[in-house]
Amino acid sequence: MKGNNQLRINGKRLWSTLMRSGEIGPGRAGGLRRLPLTDADRDMRDQFVAWCEEAGCQVTVDRIGNIFARRAGDDDNLPPVLIGSHLDTQVAGGKYDGILGVLSGLEVVRTLNDGGVATRRPIEVVCWTNEEGARFQPPMQCSGAFAGVMDVDSVLESRDDDGFVFKDELERIGYAGNAPVGGRDLDAYFELHIEQGPELEANNLALGVVVGGYFSRGMVFEVLGENAHAGPTPMHIRRNALVGASMLVVAANDIGWDFHPGQGKSTATRMLVWPNKPGILPDWAEITVDFRHPDKASTLEMEARMLAAVPGIAKRANVDIKMVKSWAFGDEAFDDQCLDLVRETADELEVPYQEMLSQAGHDAYHMTRVTPTALVFSPCKDGITHNESEHIELAYTEPSVNVLLHAVLKRANR
Amino acid sequence: MKGNNQLRINGKRLWSTLMRSGEIGPGRAGGLRRLPLTDADRDMRDQFVAWCEEAGCQVTVDRIGNIFARRAGDDDNLPPVLIGSHLDTQVAGGKYDGILGVLSGLEVVRTLNDGGVATRRPIEVVCWTNEEGARFQPPMQCSGAFAGVMDVDSVLESRDDDGFVFKDELERIGYAGNAPVGGRDLDAYFELHIEQGPELEANNLALGVVVGGYFSRGMVFEVLGENAHAGPTPMHIRRNALVGASMLVVAANDIGWDFHPGQGKSTATRMLVWPNKPGILPDWAEITVDFRHPDKASTLEMEARMLAAVPGIAKRANVDIKMVKSWAFGDEAFDDQCLDLVRETADELEVPYQEMLSQAGHDAYHMTRVTPTALVFSPCKDGITHNESEHIELAYTEPSVNVLLHAVLKRANR
Repeated sequence: MKGNNQLRINGKRLWSTLMRSGEIGPGRAGGLRRLPLTDADRDMRDQFVAWCEEAGCQVTVDRIGNIFARRAGDDDNLPPVLIGSHLDTQVAGGKYDGILGVLSGLEVVRTLNDGGVATRRPIEVVCWTNEEGARFQPPMQCSGAFAGVMDVDSVLESRDDDGFVFKDELERIGYAGNAPVGGRDLDAYFELHIEQGPELEANNLALGVVVGGYFSRGMVFEVLGENAHAGPTPMHIRRNALVGASMLVVAANDIGWDFHPGQGKSTATRMLVWPNKPGILPDWAEITVDFRHPDKASTLEMEARMLAAVPGIAKRANVDIKMVKSWAFGDEAFDDQCLDLVRETADELEVPYQEMLSQAGHDAYHMTRVTPTALVFSPCKDGITHNESEHIELAYTEPSVNVLLHAVLKRANR
Repeated sequence: MKGNNQLRINGKRLWSTLMRSGEIGPGRAGGLRRLPLTDADRDMRDQFVAWCEEAGCQVTVDRIGNIFARRAGDDDNLPPVLIGSHLDTQVAGGKYDGILGVLSGLEVVRTLNDGGVATRRPIEVVCWTNEEGARFQPPMQCSGAFAGVMDVDSVLESRDDDGFVFKDELERIGYAGNAPVGGRDLDAYFELHIEQGPELEANNLALGVVVGGYFSRGMVFEVLGENAHAGPTPMHIRRNALVGASMLVVAANDIGWDFHPGQGKSTATRMLVWPNKPGILPDWAEITVDFRHPDKASTLEMEARMLAAVPGIAKRANVDIKMVKSWAFGDEAFDDQCLDLVRETADELEVPYQEMLSQAGHDAYHMTRVTPTALVFSPCKDGITHNESEHIELAYTEPSVNVLLHAVLKRANR
């Protein structure tokens, strides 16, 4: 083993890459608005690729824009150890969500370079396209396609709300690569992410070892009504899709409160309405809701309650309602060996940690399907995330990146 | 008096203009989608102007695109009698709403020409820009500006949802005229409109004499929340603007039902949400609601109930809510002399009629502020309107256009 237990990342350098990233695609309130396949995404990708090439990595891009920066191993035919996350953000996102995971991977490579440390297996830093789902849906789209959970063609054909097509936008920004999507052997996948919750900060811990997820069920409901004049049409013959959709939102929210004592949550985040103009009753609406609970059976109960509420709402609003999409994540199994490796490494580096569940979706979930995977958390201030004021402190971040460094180093030298 | 009591409009010709109009700006379901200041609006205006010029009218356009087609009077210095309505439609609109009023004015002029009938006062057929409010808001915008109810500059600066500016679009389609907006003497204004309700059809009548309106109060509420992650954020600290907005929609709808026995109506037609993406709690939403009741005090009570519901909803959804716009219409007074003239004329022509209230807004409301005004209705099938399947029958339309012809003729010959 060529690793050096005294090896430590360069925190200042990591921070400077985060700050540089934080300039690309500014939001309106100090955070980031870096939607996938926009000019800002291209600029960030260009910066990331330049950094990786400076660090001696060989960069390949697959057909859906996932970027892999490879640091060769001594036995370069062995499957690589992957480190990564995403560089895209929410419409009003922070500077760290996802970004920390990718740039920590880069910092690991740079640190190994600085120390002249070779590894037996190659190491690859990966940036997944469109994790957030803020422009093209669903979220975690391109790690999902890599892992075979989603269909590559349906990814390429997906459209944003303005009708722009994924594959056209990917070509436009120059990141429609040649590499096939997935289908190759990997040794392991490690992802470091900000916690997106308040626990680590509250417990004054710099590291969370994620042992599972909140089971999440998401769904899209379509509501069909009928156009009519807002004036003369009597209440009893109205078929206002916006009214039906609003009742669904309120019902979903009430279910979330009912399961709040057990840490359940429900969210309605998105509503589309047509024609959405004054004076005319909308004949179409669509809402996106999700339910999350640490206990899978409770999530399923929340979902069942929602579905049971639909017929009554359809009757009350005099509309037709159908569920047109649904998805689930959060019960994927992380790898025991990888988790143990993280735990051991944290002990060796004397970084206290807690085990916890992830409440959000992550690329790591999909990766569990194709390779041994570990997901670790570092703290963020007040648990605020998907908000431009998302914040982290280097001092509370550096320990987790050092754990990532040594866990990856050990894994790559097995 | 040079009028001829035997004079009748040419119904087939009127119908052919309606059918030609019905080809310009087709909707997705057989109706029209002719939003103001679009190419379709331009094409319809070009057709209308060509027809008016063929009929010997002198066409002028004012600074906000209102078109006036003038048939000279024998005493051409007298203020003109106006006949008109609008040629724009809802996003999913019909072929008759507004259009019938403008093209009936044209048919009146053509009929007078055919009969070689001169009038003492000039007659002008007017097409008001943007009655529907389907692209630029508020509705009845340009008759409002003509009547001094709205500010001309604010009309010119208004923007659609895609950021296109009224005055730029008006110039683009070539209808930014030189005539000042309003400020000139008129003798009277007559508007014929489809009823947009089922009463005339149910009572087998071809004419409604509108003696007043449902008093309408409209308002826009802004809801302010906070962006946060849909996953980890616990229910009790969420500030989801979409939830608050949905509760407002449900509350408004409930109020409508409470006043349904007295023919009250409430409508939520429009909701905007930001960022409106999966995974992130929206921090901003806006809804448009209106309340209408034949009894003004009841409309005011509906409004008061809505405003009273706001604090509780703000608390329940943990958001801030404020009313950012409001408007009222429907209690304007039509002119007794003009109404009597319509009644007399209907009796002479043996067209049975009923007196009724208008439940929708009309350009005629604004015109009451600057000239004696009458609004008359003709039947539409099943009361369906603001819907592409809006339908009328010529046989049930022709009598009201003949009443319009003779009422205008008498008024112009006073």
